[in-house]
Amino acid sequence: MDQPEPTAPRGTLIDGVIETVRRRIASRSLTPGAKLPSVRAFARSAGVSTSTVVEAYERLAAEGAIRSRPGSGFYVESALAPLSLSDLGPRLDREVDPFWISRQSLEAEPGVLTPGCGWLPPSWMPEAGLRRALRTLARGEAESLTDYGPPLGFAPLRRLLSRRFADHGVEAPPDQIVLAESGTQAIDLLCRFLLEPGDTVLLDDPCYFNFHALLRAHRAKIVGVPYGPNGPDLERFAEACREHRPRLYMTNSAIHNPTGASLSPVVAHRLLKIAEEADLTIVEDDIFADLGDPSAPCLAAFDGLSRVVQVGSFSKTLSASVRCGYIAAPADWIEDLVDLRIATSFGGGRLSAELLHALLKDGGYRRHVEALRVRLAEATGETARRLKAVGVVPWIEPRAGMFLWCRLPEGVDASETARRALTEDVVLAPGDAFSLSRTAGGFMRFNVAQSGDPRLYDVLGRAMQAA
Amino acid sequence: MDQPEPTAPRGTLIDGVIETVRRRIASRSLTPGAKLPSVRAFARSAGVSTSTVVEAYERLAAEGAIRSRPGSGFYVESALAPLSLSDLGPRLDREVDPFWISRQSLEAEPGVLTPGCGWLPPSWMPEAGLRRALRTLARGEAESLTDYGPPLGFAPLRRLLSRRFADHGVEAPPDQIVLAESGTQAIDLLCRFLLEPGDTVLLDDPCYFNFHALLRAHRAKIVGVPYGPNGPDLERFAEACREHRPRLYMTNSAIHNPTGASLSPVVAHRLLKIAEEADLTIVEDDIFADLGDPSAPCLAAFDGLSRVVQVGSFSKTLSASVRCGYIAAPADWIEDLVDLRIATSFGGGRLSAELLHALLKDGGYRRHVEALRVRLAEATGETARRLKAVGVVPWIEPRAGMFLWCRLPEGVDASETARRALTEDVVLAPGDAFSLSRTAGGFMRFNVAQSGDPRLYDVLGRAMQAA
Repeated sequence: MDQPEPTAPRGTLIDGVIETVRRRIASRSLTPGAKLPSVRAFARSAGVSTSTVVEAYERLAAEGAIRSRPGSGFYVESALAPLSLSDLGPRLDREVDPFWISRQSLEAEPGVLTPGCGWLPPSWMPEAGLRRALRTLARGEAESLTDYGPPLGFAPLRRLLSRRFADHGVEAPPDQIVLAESGTQAIDLLCRFLLEPGDTVLLDDPCYFNFHALLRAHRAKIVGVPYGPNGPDLERFAEACREHRPRLYMTNSAIHNPTGASLSPVVAHRLLKIAEEADLTIVEDDIFADLGDPSAPCLAAFDGLSRVVQVGSFSKTLSASVRCGYIAAPADWIEDLVDLRIATSFGGGRLSAELLHALLKDGGYRRHVEALRVRLAEATGETARRLKAVGVVPWIEPRAGMFLWCRLPEGVDASETARRALTEDVVLAPGDAFSLSRTAGGFMRFNVAQSGDPRLYDVLGRAMQAA
Repeated sequence: MDQPEPTAPRGTLIDGVIETVRRRIASRSLTPGAKLPSVRAFARSAGVSTSTVVEAYERLAAEGAIRSRPGSGFYVESALAPLSLSDLGPRLDREVDPFWISRQSLEAEPGVLTPGCGWLPPSWMPEAGLRRALRTLARGEAESLTDYGPPLGFAPLRRLLSRRFADHGVEAPPDQIVLAESGTQAIDLLCRFLLEPGDTVLLDDPCYFNFHALLRAHRAKIVGVPYGPNGPDLERFAEACREHRPRLYMTNSAIHNPTGASLSPVVAHRLLKIAEEADLTIVEDDIFADLGDPSAPCLAAFDGLSRVVQVGSFSKTLSASVRCGYIAAPADWIEDLVDLRIATSFGGGRLSAELLHALLKDGGYRRHVEALRVRLAEATGETARRLKAVGVVPWIEPRAGMFLWCRLPEGVDASETARRALTEDVVLAPGDAFSLSRTAGGFMRFNVAQSGDPRLYDVLGRAMQAA
């Protein structure tokens, strides 16, 4: 706590106390509803008189920052200030707020180009298969249409997922798989299960921007580790483990968002060793894995679901409208995970799970993702070529996936470029939205499946020039 | 803190310190990861020597309850103890665990009778309408099948909900309505938005058992208020407001779960006055409202969405398999609520929302719920008659809904009865699962739509006799 000069005039001393309290509220060392130190205790520790503290508290109460409870003391006001995620961290520029890209992408009207969004356009999705699955369900059992699902989720889908895990080298029996409402909700459930407020979580820098938002909602402390072309910087990773004693590390390994990089086997192996020494749990969000090489390494395969828990969904390959995610976790977590899921979302999304199962079981899925991989590889080459023509250079040539993480020309600010492009109906994904350290101001993520329209490159070129 | 006798032998003093720390961890006044008082501070406050505290801390560290961080002090262990809901409150008997009824109902195999469950059987749901809606969607736009929904949720459904709210006297424009994955998830989102860990929430006693589980997941302190035939006991409610300064009150007003009672207008009015004085926010879960009189009073109608936020879903009247809930909230909450929803579950359930919209817009819904009300009224009379024949007496004759809250014959324990009935494939809902004070051991909730099979009354009679 900053200690005001005891020799300063009384007005300054009062302001000093007010400022100190405000700072402690802003930094959440005093959380809403918390009791402030007693007048006497504060006066003693700050080296000022009790009347100075009384006056400071009363002014803070008058402006609504704290509240007096007769006979009990002063409390940080909370009733009028519901939790706002934007208050939980430093106030970011609206351009690179973690929600900027989500909101702009989700709100985009027809005609708006969305190379900044993180999913495939409808024309890339298996529309005919989805229509077929809906018609199948329309003829199905009444229970499928009306009733809650079982606690772990629709069993045939969990059996199918178990076989898919086996194909990727992960031994996850169906009763170690829990369905969730979506991939995001699966991660959220794990955070609830594993984190206490104030726990530290390691994230890649850059990483998927929504990890930041999600972890702030859990009041976690986030520590970033620089991400390179083969995975996180291991020296910095080990250092962060020693220094911050994190509870969790959250990452995408098969295809990294936003960089498109893949974890190399040697990095995966060393990472797990460090995690073991630090007693660190890893949440591996493998939501893009099906777009990559099926034999690409994932941490869960190396580790065997002891320290690594894997999460996924089909929102990137089948449908984002049909919500369903899943978790493969250690056997002794399952009971408590399911209790927590029932408490917070009750009976699972049976219709969605049955729809996905109908789509997945007919073998068309494998052909669909193979076709997607070919189409994405072509679009990646084409998009890289066109971006280079306007001076935007991919950081790496990714082996798979939908993302190109690119460096803008020297001196061009990505956030400002994105803001300008938005006025011309193009939603871009500026680098700093993905970067905790905000060191990616010269980078931008492009979704190659959403970058086919030539108008993008005109708008981008103009916006960069203006920025 | 209990203060050990300073004159006791040193071994006893050490045990006293150990016991004190254990109790503070168990009661969560010391939460996992929290720093323990310094050895010196503890010794001073407990009136023992520092060497006594050092020895106590070291024994606690050896047994894994706390952990020493060199140079920093002692911390409550957390890495090895993932959050388990059952650890958050007093360990309840498995029979009356808040999850007991959910788990047994959700897991019930065909042939098991579930008079204890909280929803209608498939044969009561609008199966033909659901099949028709699925076929409509199968012919719909590709975006509906594949893409994320907008941040607030599918706009035509929000417009329809806004008109429904108006019919119930609640003015909620579409942009004050946010869709969620389910009614439970809607409440969960509000808890995240409104509660800090340690905040106090008022609940009816008895109330829907999952409120207990949900609030424990939010680490809220729960205070129960006795619920009578016309609503909560207002004197006790006001007293609880004065004494505990709660942040929230969570209730069902139109048809109360589990009692089937309805809030009377005069109680509603007085309740809102008390809430206003206490600056209390009310979450009104009106999930059963459509089963009752459309003109029945609800708190949101009296209050106009300033202090009352209303939550609902169609899981009780259309489908529990198609997950979709909604929140009507004050206008200035919406931006932050939506950010929080994106952070924790991303892009909403578009397919579910469009399916429900297709079902709701054709006018068949009104006829369906009217038919449901008639059928439920008949089943209520019939179930009450058959229950009375085995000595089980309804607490009130509810005006609407699916629940009969009943008193068992003198001396019969509901939890023991439920445990015995389960061995004969009947899932019952023992009263204490709904009661924070566990004063409903002689009560049981019956779902009249799930109580048509004569076998229930045989099994119930036998189980009560044995219990």
